[in-house]
Amino acid sequence: MAPSTDLNTHSPGDASEPASEELRTLLKTATNVFADYVARCQSAQAPILTQASGDELSERFSQLGPKTANIWHDISEITATATNTWSDRFLFKLYAAPTPIGVVAETLLAVLNNNAHVFQASPVGAVLEAAVVRELARLAGFPETTGGLTFPGGSYSNIHALMIARNTKFPEIKTKGISAPLVVFTSAHAHYSIEKAAVAAGIGLDNVVKVPVDAGGRMDARALEQLVQSAAGVPFFVNATMGTTVLGAFDQLEEIARVCQRHQLWLHLDGSWGGPLGLFADPAVFSYSMAPVDSLTINPHKLLGIPLQCSILLVRHGLHTMKSALGLSADYLFHSDSDKWDVGDATLGCGRRPDAIKLWVAWRYHGSAYFTGRVNHARRMALQMAEMVKVRSSGLWRLVCEPASTCVCFWFVPRGAYEDPGELEAHRARGVDERWGRVTRAICERVNREGRVLIDYAAVDLPYGQPAAQPLPAFFRIPLNSPHTTRETLAAVLDAIEQAGHAIFNQL
Amino acid sequence: MAPSTDLNTHSPGDASEPASEELRTLLKTATNVFADYVARCQSAQAPILTQASGDELSERFSQLGPKTANIWHDISEITATATNTWSDRFLFKLYAAPTPIGVVAETLLAVLNNNAHVFQASPVGAVLEAAVVRELARLAGFPETTGGLTFPGGSYSNIHALMIARNTKFPEIKTKGISAPLVVFTSAHAHYSIEKAAVAAGIGLDNVVKVPVDAGGRMDARALEQLVQSAAGVPFFVNATMGTTVLGAFDQLEEIARVCQRHQLWLHLDGSWGGPLGLFADPAVFSYSMAPVDSLTINPHKLLGIPLQCSILLVRHGLHTMKSALGLSADYLFHSDSDKWDVGDATLGCGRRPDAIKLWVAWRYHGSAYFTGRVNHARRMALQMAEMVKVRSSGLWRLVCEPASTCVCFWFVPRGAYEDPGELEAHRARGVDERWGRVTRAICERVNREGRVLIDYAAVDLPYGQPAAQPLPAFFRIPLNSPHTTRETLAAVLDAIEQAGHAIFNQL
Repeated sequence: MAPSTDLNTHSPGDASEPASEELRTLLKTATNVFADYVARCQSAQAPILTQASGDELSERFSQLGPKTANIWHDISEITATATNTWSDRFLFKLYAAPTPIGVVAETLLAVLNNNAHVFQASPVGAVLEAAVVRELARLAGFPETTGGLTFPGGSYSNIHALMIARNTKFPEIKTKGISAPLVVFTSAHAHYSIEKAAVAAGIGLDNVVKVPVDAGGRMDARALEQLVQSAAGVPFFVNATMGTTVLGAFDQLEEIARVCQRHQLWLHLDGSWGGPLGLFADPAVFSYSMAPVDSLTINPHKLLGIPLQCSILLVRHGLHTMKSALGLSADYLFHSDSDKWDVGDATLGCGRRPDAIKLWVAWRYHGSAYFTGRVNHARRMALQMAEMVKVRSSGLWRLVCEPASTCVCFWFVPRGAYEDPGELEAHRARGVDERWGRVTRAICERVNREGRVLIDYAAVDLPYGQPAAQPLPAFFRIPLNSPHTTRETLAAVLDAIEQAGHAIFNQL
Repeated sequence: MAPSTDLNTHSPGDASEPASEELRTLLKTATNVFADYVARCQSAQAPILTQASGDELSERFSQLGPKTANIWHDISEITATATNTWSDRFLFKLYAAPTPIGVVAETLLAVLNNNAHVFQASPVGAVLEAAVVRELARLAGFPETTGGLTFPGGSYSNIHALMIARNTKFPEIKTKGISAPLVVFTSAHAHYSIEKAAVAAGIGLDNVVKVPVDAGGRMDARALEQLVQSAAGVPFFVNATMGTTVLGAFDQLEEIARVCQRHQLWLHLDGSWGGPLGLFADPAVFSYSMAPVDSLTINPHKLLGIPLQCSILLVRHGLHTMKSALGLSADYLFHSDSDKWDVGDATLGCGRRPDAIKLWVAWRYHGSAYFTGRVNHARRMALQMAEMVKVRSSGLWRLVCEPASTCVCFWFVPRGAYEDPGELEAHRARGVDERWGRVTRAICERVNREGRVLIDYAAVDLPYGQPAAQPLPAFFRIPLNSPHTTRETLAAVLDAIEQAGHAIFNQL
């Protein structure tokens, strides 16, 4: 096809306004739209969750294709139906409100649109990534030769750790594929991404051994060693956790590390949730005893308030280990004259956001002391909430366990949940009742539907795989994170739970 | 540890200013800082690439830990050393300047900080994702029951396609792992992410069969069938490409689809680069004949100007196929009462940015006609540049092939590259000379070092695996994408190449 003669008249950009001025006009409006939105979100009466169902929302946003008359109308519809993460009463998942500087840093990433696969496509991103990796490695007691990169979330960091471990221990798998069964060990309370990693890696769920946990939700190192010795395939990888997903338990590393040394297993530490607490907390508030591990995941997008996504994987054996495990040195992208700053080949991806810039900017803006203050506050709020649960007296309030870090797990059973009030009193003294799971779910559903508080529930066996193990009915799981949380927040959440419980069960 | 009595005095947020006002103040400054930066980037003389090395930059940004006196100073250091993707002379990789509304949409994502794993954590993100998936599926001729999600880049979309195919065809792999060799087929010119997927999946590089390509860089369907029939393991997956990484070739799908049907192979189509051209272009400008495929990757962060990252994987067999291939239904996150809008379990990840919101907002702001105009323009610029290469007369200019879509690949060999001018003339008539690769690399390195233009080179065999195959020396590979590109841009790039060539070789 011959090119048309009027090529330059086809530029889709409107020549009447340069992109810089279009951006200025849009960002100017966005500044007020977004700041007003946040102010509304933080007001005491702000709803947290839309009451529209997915199908209803889908109707509302069905238009696509024709140009909108007013993009700010569309954006206000989006903000009106988004989940309000700025409220102190958003206590739903392991992340919270982003820091304002984090929002600016995210905007910076979009403005730069640099790509962290090769140095020339993101020179400053590459060095800022190295800087935050160096500092996190120092805090975690890793050697100076540690390598590290950002990945699109804790799961991807964990998946990369497992893939790097597999290909480092069995280099022939990179070329020949898997032919013998490999075995992975992870605590029964660890995050599911280890299982997803095993599925992805061609290892299979049957070869993921769930290691028992003690009464505090921590991996049992003696059970681990027995399971390693009796494994049906070739053990190679152990995942320990700093801050389990539900209870927030920190696995005790020393003994686990000794087991791994004795059996030459790769020890990965998943600190997606609890990592920043372990690394930044004032020792008087929270202390954790590190031991040498091969790799570590930390998610600054959780406890450090960086906007989603910012997850970092550290690998003790350096970037060259990551590259030789996963790299292909594709000619077209990674030229032979490229240097150590071309890091993308150490990942399973290609194009990559320079997410580390966000952490670097937030770190410079606030200083390390802010991160310490932030995680200290989260820990103190967890302890505070546990105390408040213990002294409540309407119905039955009981902690599942003392908060291991920054999650508080408890039951609330209103008197009306039992026809005979004596039954409740009987349960106060002895074990737990299976009925409490239905009570928890019903209360949680009602609280969230009312929309003033967003909370969640979970259930785990505690301990697990031990003689005393018992399956626990579902309980409230409240993760503490946001610096906006106060004692009043905690009281409001407990009140909302109590009121919803009475509203449901005292009518029965 | 008992909670301290002064819990509420430890809030790390500065109580003197609410977050909304901190955000307003920061975004107000950011608006001007970023718009001024873009204006500088788009000026005719703006440098594209920093001249500082990684080690030099690393020195400059070594401070971390103490709070900075002025974050805008730090940010201006970052912008000053970032790669300038706003210039029309940034022609380095397959992405370009983001659209201004894309930057605003990215800021919106950060402000919302919603998380696309479960519906309640990102209700509006879930429905906007479904909306863009529905519309892209319609454009690609997929059925209404198609499932689709965003992933953190084209590689991750392709990796997920391969994992979903593997676990759908061999469901026992999810639990038992891989025990027999599986074989994957992809064109010799396809993106390396298919090989990375095979490494990740435990299949191994030796089981990735590189299918020969014809003189246009397109997969040879007859060769594919022969290779399938003679494979040493179990064939299950074929990757075809809309827009190969170097030449931009579009594989001819009909015959490939028939081969896949005959042998019951999953057919994936990697449209990371060329997908938007195939889907949105005016048929008079570019047309592509689709055929039924099982899955399709499209990266709006490339040809549609959405800020990095925005990649979408469509799966013909629906979201339930994705979920049953990869899902674990982790209790703590995906409650049994969760509905079809909880989609995260269909991915290998957990937390997930609602990237589809960016595409939805840009689509509404500009309308479909903008996307059509944008890809038409990119295609026309490629044809225009090819014509300009053909008529240049100083030294030897030669296209590697006619532009298949929106990449232009060519050699320039200055007279001075040969001691005897007759040698150059002799090469004008017959084949190519291995020396041209060194010439290309030297010129490219100098052009990029001068910093006014950023371009790249590549080398592929063309055809490949055929009797007439020849290894080609490295050539310039110019991807056209940005709406800011004009005929003047193209002339400036060719002039820069020519001048650098003369400066290097006429001095010899």
